[in-house]
Amino acid sequence: MSTTPELDRELAELIQNNLREIPDFPEPGVLFRDITPLLANGPAFAKLIDGLAEKYRGKVDAIAGLESRGFILAAPLAIALGVGMLTIRKAGKLPGPVLGVDYELEYGSARMEIRPDSVKEGDRVLIIDDVLATGGTAAAAIELVEASGAEVEGICVLMELLALKGRDKLPGREVAALLSF
Amino acid sequence: MSTTPELDRELAELIQNNLREIPDFPEPGVLFRDITPLLANGPAFAKLIDGLAEKYRGKVDAIAGLESRGFILAAPLAIALGVGMLTIRKAGKLPGPVLGVDYELEYGSARMEIRPDSVKEGDRVLIIDDVLATGGTAAAAIELVEASGAEVEGICVLMELLALKGRDKLPGREVAALLSF
Repeated sequence: MSTTPELDRELAELIQNNLREIPDFPEPGVLFRDITPLLANGPAFAKLIDGLAEKYRGKVDAIAGLESRGFILAAPLAIALGVGMLTIRKAGKLPGPVLGVDYELEYGSARMEIRPDSVKEGDRVLIIDDVLATGGTAAAAIELVEASGAEVEGICVLMELLALKGRDKLPGREVAALLSF
Repeated sequence: MSTTPELDRELAELIQNNLREIPDFPEPGVLFRDITPLLANGPAFAKLIDGLAEKYRGKVDAIAGLESRGFILAAPLAIALGVGMLTIRKAGKLPGPVLGVDYELEYGSARMEIRPDSVKEGDRVLIIDDVLATGGTAAAAIELVEASGAEVEGICVLMELLALKGRDKLPGREVAALLSF
């Protein structure tokens, strides 16, 4: 990516200034970083999407949003870039035919699905979500995009939780995290 | 709304031409109308959001998206209109404090939640979702927006399933359905 340090710094500040930290959610001991104040701030939300579009303009053919907060970023970014959006969803939500991948959660497992016909062979796809935590969802998304015949250009998240080492599950991938904790 | 019949006709055709009909999903006897081809078609998706922005420009202060397909429409529409977006989510997804409303489904019930501080007193809110079916979710969303101190400017859906009589649950409300079946 040909993004500038200035742009990256601006976007990091924008997110930081519009986050709300909520202790003990969704469970005791977890500090949840809530992006709803960022979304509710029209000018800030627009500036975030503008900045993301600047980072990825001309480099991608489709944006994949991970259900469900990833949808909130993928849809306006796709429009800003003039490309299509695809949804990677929890099991059972997309009508068939679908491809699915099971992945591990901290407790138990989950399954994500894609409609392989939502991308074209060779499309360069950016996968976007709000948070990179353990990396399980992102790794599953990469597998699904590639199994559909497209290429993964990179993964972009607003926030990366460094302690969970999500990048270890994404070796050799271009991971852009606008803010890290 | 000061929308023109031409714009409405254009939007209806745009949706119709980019839908995929899937019989017997999510259960036997149901014809599911899948919008993923519309989202995957960059120019069509952009035209849809442009058209929605034309319908609502100057009339709303915030866009409420219903989890999770409503998020895909609410986010780019909020950006196009320069206003904030708020999320109305399934129970347990939003960190507190939240307001919640239980509503009936065909079998059983569900609960939707809002963070009341995501809107300002008196804000004119447009509630958006992909489909109006039984109207239960839309009625719950109206209750949550009003309980937060904001006003509901209207409800907008891409498709209305007339046989399910969802409008009967939304008396006196401005409901815009771009396409009806």
